[in-house]
Amino acid sequence: MEYEKYLSDKVKKLKASAIREMFKLMSDPEIISLAGGSPDPSLFPSEALAEIAADILKNQPVTALQYGTTDGYRPFKEAALNRAKKINSVAEGDKIIITTGEQQGIDLAVKTLVNEGECVAVEQPSFVGSLNSIRAHNAVLVPVELEDDGISTDRFEEILKETRIKLLYTIPNFQNPSGITMTIEKRKKLLELASKYDFLIIEDNPYGDLRFAGEDVPTIKSLDTEGRVIYCSSFSKILSPGMRLGYVICSGAVIDRIEIAKQANDVHTPFLTQMIAAAYLEKYDIDKDIERAREVYGRKCAFMLECMEKYFPKSLKWTHPEGGLFIMCTAPEGTDIDALLKESLKNKVAFVAGSGFMVDQEKPCSMFRLNYSTMPEEKIEKGIKALGEVLHKMV
Amino acid sequence: MEYEKYLSDKVKKLKASAIREMFKLMSDPEIISLAGGSPDPSLFPSEALAEIAADILKNQPVTALQYGTTDGYRPFKEAALNRAKKINSVAEGDKIIITTGEQQGIDLAVKTLVNEGECVAVEQPSFVGSLNSIRAHNAVLVPVELEDDGISTDRFEEILKETRIKLLYTIPNFQNPSGITMTIEKRKKLLELASKYDFLIIEDNPYGDLRFAGEDVPTIKSLDTEGRVIYCSSFSKILSPGMRLGYVICSGAVIDRIEIAKQANDVHTPFLTQMIAAAYLEKYDIDKDIERAREVYGRKCAFMLECMEKYFPKSLKWTHPEGGLFIMCTAPEGTDIDALLKESLKNKVAFVAGSGFMVDQEKPCSMFRLNYSTMPEEKIEKGIKALGEVLHKMV
Repeated sequence: MEYEKYLSDKVKKLKASAIREMFKLMSDPEIISLAGGSPDPSLFPSEALAEIAADILKNQPVTALQYGTTDGYRPFKEAALNRAKKINSVAEGDKIIITTGEQQGIDLAVKTLVNEGECVAVEQPSFVGSLNSIRAHNAVLVPVELEDDGISTDRFEEILKETRIKLLYTIPNFQNPSGITMTIEKRKKLLELASKYDFLIIEDNPYGDLRFAGEDVPTIKSLDTEGRVIYCSSFSKILSPGMRLGYVICSGAVIDRIEIAKQANDVHTPFLTQMIAAAYLEKYDIDKDIERAREVYGRKCAFMLECMEKYFPKSLKWTHPEGGLFIMCTAPEGTDIDALLKESLKNKVAFVAGSGFMVDQEKPCSMFRLNYSTMPEEKIEKGIKALGEVLHKMV
Repeated sequence: MEYEKYLSDKVKKLKASAIREMFKLMSDPEIISLAGGSPDPSLFPSEALAEIAADILKNQPVTALQYGTTDGYRPFKEAALNRAKKINSVAEGDKIIITTGEQQGIDLAVKTLVNEGECVAVEQPSFVGSLNSIRAHNAVLVPVELEDDGISTDRFEEILKETRIKLLYTIPNFQNPSGITMTIEKRKKLLELASKYDFLIIEDNPYGDLRFAGEDVPTIKSLDTEGRVIYCSSFSKILSPGMRLGYVICSGAVIDRIEIAKQANDVHTPFLTQMIAAAYLEKYDIDKDIERAREVYGRKCAFMLECMEKYFPKSLKWTHPEGGLFIMCTAPEGTDIDALLKESLKNKVAFVAGSGFMVDQEKPCSMFRLNYSTMPEEKIEKGIKALGEVLHKMV
């Protein structure tokens, strides 16, 4: 049967995320993956989680296994809210909804706020998962250039003068894929623009805890006096991505509608995973885990940068992140990154080609993303060296 | 801030599910809930799951806690596929995607197949979660009368002659909220209509395993020779709803696009819950659990029907299900079911008013849904008796 004709316009235009497709290769243990955005698996507190999981299923089986409320397991909601409060990202009247990973929070926020054909501004490049989520609501993506200190607010204002923007989607901290952090001045400017041109902002902050250099910058949410920011964050990078635990914080009809949209999407996030995380957060000091993660990622990032200096052609440029998981590399214009990836995969090294992070994925793009958090250091060196060899041949 | 104006049309018109709202009351232990669609919690194999969870987190922590593939954990996919194969509901070339509860499968299938403004036919009454999911994609719900032996195929064909229907959503087994099962003749007729009028069918089958009387009827999927059925099912009613484990089975571009839509929705379903379920299905005989559940639900259903005979006014009519979780009651026309519910809640008995199951939720509706699976028998009697008293006063 020919199914193409039955597909909705929304999904017809989606391309599978290159990251996700890459993920399927990862079952090959020989592959050195500089592709995903996965935490270092040695950081998972699995022994503690095993004990907690058994305890919960033995002593609170009904709460863990029966249907739960859509907004989430109360103690976990409180724990997540407390993390956001510590960075002043909860305003009076705000509510929290636990989501099945932060991706769901972003997806539901976009669904709640954007009609088909309306415009959503995004940094370019930006996270492919969010771009696809916005595309899947038939919204119009409006790219705004990303500069070394965050989104170009000048360029954005020019766009705003001409185009009705309903929503801005931004990753201000250690942006995906660039690793770039937005200055406080630009964060304030975005809020001014939001007020002047009347749009809302989705602040996507999964990496904020993972700063290993420089000074923390306040979240846009913490600077927001008008209630324009929908704050989305996650436990994926500080506890476990596989548990799929994210959250959305905002106010009024927006958060109420996100809850109803979630009812119609997956009813609720599994309670077992929420309960395990809540108990872990109560019994253990996650800030100590985060400190350790910062130290590990800071070391690995520095090491990868060192290897890149050593093995990459001088004609490449790359970012120098102060936190998060990613380095963005830019090859000389005209470099065929898809061919580079193909060649690199033959040498068992995976990374993510930049085109997936662009609004127009068909346009030539000489950028690619590297991840330093997942692999141990010897594999980072091996991977960068092998990739460097391919680069020397092809650039 | 006034947020209403920022909401998308899609979510603006959604009403919170009455079932979900009711759910929030359930934390009151005094409430006798005949409202939800929850399994009997005494059936949860929590000891076994506790042991399995600890074992997985100790011995396979990385698979359980790291990012996983969007389509699901392979051994769990295979286990789910095998369950569907046993009822001939997997065709050659079909693939399976694990979803975060069956609700997500339905939501993504609708997203994948229906543009805004296109028509989706549904039984009336039908499951509020699915109706809301279809509404949330700005599709047009076209109600088709439900008869004692399933959807009215005659009425449906009349509609099909006049209206372009893109998709039919149906719950053929022990329908929610009615408990009604569709005959094999009507299932075959639906497939004929689908071929003649060129539409696809979402077959929602979460209750199919829970038959306690009569004979199994083949799934629509098993009768489908053209690949028109998207088969959705769940482990919620046979293992645990809180684990949120559902699946979708179909072919070609439809299942491929559902996978991509899932990437943009929640990336993947938690692997921990999938691994726990897979290990349980491997080590234990879930068909024995199901046998026990059938026996328990058959007994409870018969008992509730007995109580209803004894305590309800003779002017009420109700269905006599052969499986599943629900009985649908119809009060004399003009009965104010919302007032009835309010009064009943004062007496600490909850049920679900019928209006939520209607396409037009504002229209007067004298129907309500009762659940017999969740409460122990003494509470069923207490609840039906108390509800009977209110009914005698109000009908």
